Amino acid sequence: RLAADAVKEKIVDAITRNLNVCELSSASNIIRLADLGCAVGSNTINAMQDVLEVIKNKCHSQCPSSKLPEFQVFFNDKTSNDFNTLFTSLPQQREYYSAGVPGSFHHRLFPQSSIHFAHCSYALHWLSKVPEELLDENSPAWNKGRIHYTNAAEEVVNAYASQFAKDMENFLNARAEEIVSGGMMVIIMPGIPYGMPYSHLTNGVMYDLMATIFMELANEQLITEAELDSFNLPIYSASSEEMVKLVDKNGHFSIKTVELTNPTSWLEGPIDIKAWTMHVRAAMEAMFSKHFRIEIIDEMFNRLIRRLFEFSDKVESGYKEKTQLFVILMRK
Amino acid sequence: RLAADAVKEKIVDAITRNLNVCELSSASNIIRLADLGCAVGSNTINAMQDVLEVIKNKCHSQCPSSKLPEFQVFFNDKTSNDFNTLFTSLPQQREYYSAGVPGSFHHRLFPQSSIHFAHCSYALHWLSKVPEELLDENSPAWNKGRIHYTNAAEEVVNAYASQFAKDMENFLNARAEEIVSGGMMVIIMPGIPYGMPYSHLTNGVMYDLMATIFMELANEQLITEAELDSFNLPIYSASSEEMVKLVDKNGHFSIKTVELTNPTSWLEGPIDIKAWTMHVRAAMEAMFSKHFRIEIIDEMFNRLIRRLFEFSDKVESGYKEKTQLFVILMRK
Repeated sequence: RLAADAVKEKIVDAITRNLNVCELSSASNIIRLADLGCAVGSNTINAMQDVLEVIKNKCHSQCPSSKLPEFQVFFNDKTSNDFNTLFTSLPQQREYYSAGVPGSFHHRLFPQSSIHFAHCSYALHWLSKVPEELLDENSPAWNKGRIHYTNAAEEVVNAYASQFAKDMENFLNARAEEIVSGGMMVIIMPGIPYGMPYSHLTNGVMYDLMATIFMELANEQLITEAELDSFNLPIYSASSEEMVKLVDKNGHFSIKTVELTNPTSWLEGPIDIKAWTMHVRAAMEAMFSKHFRIEIIDEMFNRLIRRLFEFSDKVESGYKEKTQLFVILMRK
Repeated sequence: RLAADAVKEKIVDAITRNLNVCELSSASNIIRLADLGCAVGSNTINAMQDVLEVIKNKCHSQCPSSKLPEFQVFFNDKTSNDFNTLFTSLPQQREYYSAGVPGSFHHRLFPQSSIHFAHCSYALHWLSKVPEELLDENSPAWNKGRIHYTNAAEEVVNAYASQFAKDMENFLNARAEEIVSGGMMVIIMPGIPYGMPYSHLTNGVMYDLMATIFMELANEQLITEAELDSFNLPIYSASSEEMVKLVDKNGHFSIKTVELTNPTSWLEGPIDIKAWTMHVRAAMEAMFSKHFRIEIIDEMFNRLIRRLFEFSDKVESGYKEKTQLFVILMRK
């Protein structure tokens, strides 16, 4: 539910220790939660339910004589998210008032000082756009023949890093306006140890193989070179050090926790290549299909599975522990 | 936009005179609006935009030295409403934070005392369900051979009236919790002069013809009698007197305005029978299609148009002015 159980425990602990629920609810007796980049389905609903229960318990223990606050949960994602499905999935009996909020979390979404707890899980690694330099033939950051910054020129890596920094700046500025003083924000996203090249990650191995396959498809004239060169995955993994720097620069949040944790998946035993590829495809399908025909995407993923099996040693030796960045911030 | 221009003027006037925007926004500098039963499309967006502009103007004039409050607009409708389409229709540049709220307005939708202005247009005439007695062969309110209370037995009329009273009781109880003291609620719905039988209304003529056609279809064995007997339109028109009684019984709202006004449509010249029928079909399609096959619905509406032309004298002489109930309430 809350990512992994280990992560859940950390969030429970952080709320129990740091969230002054009596004070937060004193003005209106309402506590407002937000899940940013919620997508569809049970993950967001279960995560918000978990948080709500911890906050309730804290209320009972911290201010037992007060009336329990009422809860309002805002489910946010881009306007193109399937809110109809999300709304249909909400449990009929729920202990909170719910609302869907369409829009990018790189902008303001809520009125000033109206959110007490924000949660953002596996969403901030999606950059708001592909850095423009990557598409410019005359830039040293032109990303010819690649689809990501893994194994790419330093200029490409830097272009991705500064796009992430800009996105985080916008994100933190917006949240600083919206989250009340004393409010909490949890961020979970793909992470990487400081200074490690992306190509060392298991995901890096996959993205490199994807690029190789797209090159083959271009050589076979199934796609044009221009199609390949203009396609880049707007996906970024941040280090703790980067995150600390960006939060400090923003200045409105204090850092309670920032650490690399083990992601829930594929920690035990060898990677299930088919399941992993299908999972990646599901997450990226929309992005691929804006750029390539469905037959090309099918072909690419078919070849990808074969290649991943072929290079399974490289896949298995890829760095995969401690690739989840876990951050807890308090609004000053 | 806000129903008719005449109605818009009344709402502008009511906000300007009665809404103490400085006081309402003093606690958090946020003003929250809700459109209850918003459906999809431009009506709700335009209505909320109109209200927002009037409130802004009032802020400028009433408390010119204060910072303009931020606005949050909640668009509510049943979970089955197409919120995806609604969200896509929202203007990119808007002066408010928006949220969709799924759920029936006969229950609580928002935290306590969190709404400053509520708007409910052409939604409260939809009863939460068909009164149960109508389907009970042993009840004097069994509505055999009819699909509505127009021209029906007194027991049927009473069953509809008490269902409306129950629904309004739930609606007003929920809103009394949610709307802040000093907040305003506008209700617009189909209305009828006190004591006038529904059959005198132009709509009554139509529903009667519908029932006649369904009887024909049953005689032709295209539908069963049981299908007809178990189908009833959960639609009600209220009088000012009924509304006053229900609001007084609730006790939490004071009535600023309750009156029958002219509905926007078909006031000038003869009724456009085709356009009117298509409009009614669009509004009711979902309800019919839960009960009848599409071929039956097609056939019924084809025959209906012919009948309406045949009985155009009766249609034209039907009562149609002053059939819009317009209510402005203030939360005590």
